[in-house]
Amino acid sequence: MSADRHVGLLAVTAQPASAPAVGMVGGGQLARMTHQAAVSLGIRLRVLAADPGDSAAQVCPDVCIGDHTSLADLREFADSCDVLTFDHEHVPGEYVTALQHAGVTVRPGAEALRHTQDKLVMRERLAGLGLACPRYATVRTLQDVRRFAASHGWPVVLKAVKGGYDGRGVWVCGAPQQAADVLAHGIPLFAEEHVGFRRELAALVARSPHGQGAAFPVVQTLQRDGICHEVLAPAPELDPGRAARIAELALRIAAELGVTGLLAVELFETADGLLVNELAMRPHNSGHWTSEGARTSQFEQHLRAVTDLPLGSPRLAAPKIALANVFGGDGQDPRPRLAHVMAADPEVKVHLYGKAPRPGRKIGHVTVLGDASDHMATLRERAVRAASYLRSGHEDQ
Amino acid sequence: MSADRHVGLLAVTAQPASAPAVGMVGGGQLARMTHQAAVSLGIRLRVLAADPGDSAAQVCPDVCIGDHTSLADLREFADSCDVLTFDHEHVPGEYVTALQHAGVTVRPGAEALRHTQDKLVMRERLAGLGLACPRYATVRTLQDVRRFAASHGWPVVLKAVKGGYDGRGVWVCGAPQQAADVLAHGIPLFAEEHVGFRRELAALVARSPHGQGAAFPVVQTLQRDGICHEVLAPAPELDPGRAARIAELALRIAAELGVTGLLAVELFETADGLLVNELAMRPHNSGHWTSEGARTSQFEQHLRAVTDLPLGSPRLAAPKIALANVFGGDGQDPRPRLAHVMAADPEVKVHLYGKAPRPGRKIGHVTVLGDASDHMATLRERAVRAASYLRSGHEDQ
Repeated sequence: MSADRHVGLLAVTAQPASAPAVGMVGGGQLARMTHQAAVSLGIRLRVLAADPGDSAAQVCPDVCIGDHTSLADLREFADSCDVLTFDHEHVPGEYVTALQHAGVTVRPGAEALRHTQDKLVMRERLAGLGLACPRYATVRTLQDVRRFAASHGWPVVLKAVKGGYDGRGVWVCGAPQQAADVLAHGIPLFAEEHVGFRRELAALVARSPHGQGAAFPVVQTLQRDGICHEVLAPAPELDPGRAARIAELALRIAAELGVTGLLAVELFETADGLLVNELAMRPHNSGHWTSEGARTSQFEQHLRAVTDLPLGSPRLAAPKIALANVFGGDGQDPRPRLAHVMAADPEVKVHLYGKAPRPGRKIGHVTVLGDASDHMATLRERAVRAASYLRSGHEDQ
Repeated sequence: MSADRHVGLLAVTAQPASAPAVGMVGGGQLARMTHQAAVSLGIRLRVLAADPGDSAAQVCPDVCIGDHTSLADLREFADSCDVLTFDHEHVPGEYVTALQHAGVTVRPGAEALRHTQDKLVMRERLAGLGLACPRYATVRTLQDVRRFAASHGWPVVLKAVKGGYDGRGVWVCGAPQQAADVLAHGIPLFAEEHVGFRRELAALVARSPHGQGAAFPVVQTLQRDGICHEVLAPAPELDPGRAARIAELALRIAAELGVTGLLAVELFETADGLLVNELAMRPHNSGHWTSEGARTSQFEQHLRAVTDLPLGSPRLAAPKIALANVFGGDGQDPRPRLAHVMAADPEVKVHLYGKAPRPGRKIGHVTVLGDASDHMATLRERAVRAASYLRSGHEDQ
């Protein structure tokens, strides 16, 4: 047994030819967890990663190293896949279109993806569908912002039309000077009213190419600085009628936009009702609880949808679920801390992404499943305690 | 992006050095499913597979191709692992001992493993612990068998002392001529009484190096020709006192034999009580339901145990669970049949092993989770229907 008998590529070529190959562009934790789901279904997941150390590239044998902003790399990767899908929304839209014109099956397709890559297109489309969104206007100058503020008040939220996620590309401006600083970046922006919401909700649905839809239970997300810290499933004390309307809304958006695969719809719940905030067309942080908490995980559901298999049951596997994200804190590897977390709470489910623990970076999540008699506050406390310990080595929250 | 940028080995070397590396000898479905669990824990699973097409080698990037009956291959594999464990019990015991003497951490160790590799050693040890087993005697000649039958009646069960599993190495002999045919193989045998059991039960426990133990709920297994076809969890209508005694029994065996990792104890439930039939020290088919059906899967539990992490909660994630194994039937790939199975029952959880569908070979399993109000008979029917369809393309059972 010599070193050259270590295999990776060999394992790939040895797999039965009939294994459907799903290519996922992006080697992050979404691809990593999608690989776990693909294994059970006998689906071969290929990953286009930027670096062999990427989260998914560490655990998946079928990795291409390439650049998702290079059409040549995308084409070569797509050649070996039956269907192409995404771990993120950063592939240039014109390249997605070009791949489709070249005959590649891309799910979701360029036409749907536009709505996650260009927030103004998204706002205009949702408004066109008559769906309630925060009020918005394109802005180019400080005068435009002042005019918007005159109608809707300060603070004004400025958003980059393209490229934002996890709080990036969003600026809450309390006064004109802050808006001027943002305008100085010289990127396309639009202004949005600052919504005084009660809480944030998220709906996750799947839609398959022939039009089947399935909606996971609506969840509450708790964000800080635009970054999701906790998810509560199902959203506590959400009126069942409202929950059903949100699920219908998300299924309708998926159908109207021609989404294939997953669609996450982030919403504000206000005193007056609901406003659609953001869309994502891929597995989503607000759905990570489904790995243990739903009969079908979002990762399996995405694979089913993009390969046009019948969708799985999205119903809850436990009455109450709390999830807390693990962030890089003190720069230490979280793995030596597992022993403490597992000893303290044998029911905590830990998911680590294999990512370097840079401060503030999402490097994992933990999930706690509860029974009907458990208080959500207790489940949250347990999840947050475990996540805090993995971040910092202590349980301060 | 050229072909040589496909990575497998690269992905391995790029992983942080501090990732604990668990080496699993054997590339079957147990290693495949263990890899899925390792991904969540940030544990690096290395697999020693005989062939790049092996079930686990298809999905794991960190594969060595080698021979588990070659001490040189085992040594080289072990060199790159923090702890060595097993997907099967076919590594020669003297090699396990040699590895341990060379300083390799092997879990379970040779002293414990002997009891799964030599059934006579197992019987003698269990009898020595005062545990009820079928009556047995070593036999060399037909006269020995006749003498055994004179005390315990026909049929007589003849078992190979070494190397049997999944019904192999076990012969139920109704008459002396059949026994003579088995004796003619010339392998070491012992005779066992043919137990008229009510049903078969299995207990699965984990034990970590520092002695922590955890027991999954006791299940019922349904076998045909010594091969497990179905698993019902928890075992229906099992007296709670008896269930507790079985769990204690399994934990006691694990402690007495010094098991580290999982221990599966297969039992006969008879009119008079319980008899221990077989032992296995690895993830076990009778525990595959834990992937969805328990708060901690057996695969995660095995990894926690062999890396000496605190054990996870073994409790049920659903009140009732039915599992049916998928066998190769007509030689057809089961994947094109997924659409039918998933459409017919969106709650069925499918696990395919990526194995060529040779008739009679286990190539996957399906699990159906039920609520307290579901009848186990209905859950079984759904699991068996899905498994039958994957096997044969029709639902006949």
